[in-house]
Amino acid sequence: MSRDLRPADTPEPPYYAVIFTSLRTAGDDGYGETAQRMLEAARRQPGFLGVESVRDGLGITVSYWQSLEAIAAWKADAEHRLAQREARRWYAAFRVRVCRVERASGF
Amino acid sequence: MSRDLRPADTPEPPYYAVIFTSLRTAGDDGYGETAQRMLEAARRQPGFLGVESVRDGLGITVSYWQSLEAIAAWKADAEHRLAQREARRWYAAFRVRVCRVERASGF
Repeated sequence: MSRDLRPADTPEPPYYAVIFTSLRTAGDDGYGETAQRMLEAARRQPGFLGVESVRDGLGITVSYWQSLEAIAAWKADAEHRLAQREARRWYAAFRVRVCRVERASGF
Repeated sequence: MSRDLRPADTPEPPYYAVIFTSLRTAGDDGYGETAQRMLEAARRQPGFLGVESVRDGLGITVSYWQSLEAIAAWKADAEHRLAQREARRWYAAFRVRVCRVERASGF
């Protein structure tokens, strides 16, 4: 997966975040290519604000969005690409959490 | 930092998340010990629900909380431990985002 090595530059809240936390199964089995394509699809989606992604055993990918509608559109597109059986093949465990970002700070 | 190697087992939404994304400066300089102590302080805090943390260049730590009040209490405690000058010394960049988790799924 192509990686941004800095925190995402997001606008002033409120906006939305999708926190995807996962534990992979062993082996690639087409995972790397699909993950890359799903990230590219996110970047092209209207309302996409940025993404942060790290894996070291556990993986955490947080994508940021202008609205719940933008997330829903991306989700519909992602589900078109990623069948549920593939999720079970690639992930030993995962959680997806959809959040409203209320406050942000930092430098 | 002691690490959980699975997604956090959180209750049904709504609850709250603090997404902390950071890029470290070079060298430890007391960072590891303080990070460990801050995580232990979070675990002791009433209203703490769980944490997920990964670093590989970029670091993402997501802590989960019952309420904004629990986050405020942890923040006050964390700020007591971590002076702003230490944040500048340890981090080349960071963002803290406080979110309300609206929906969650996964296995």
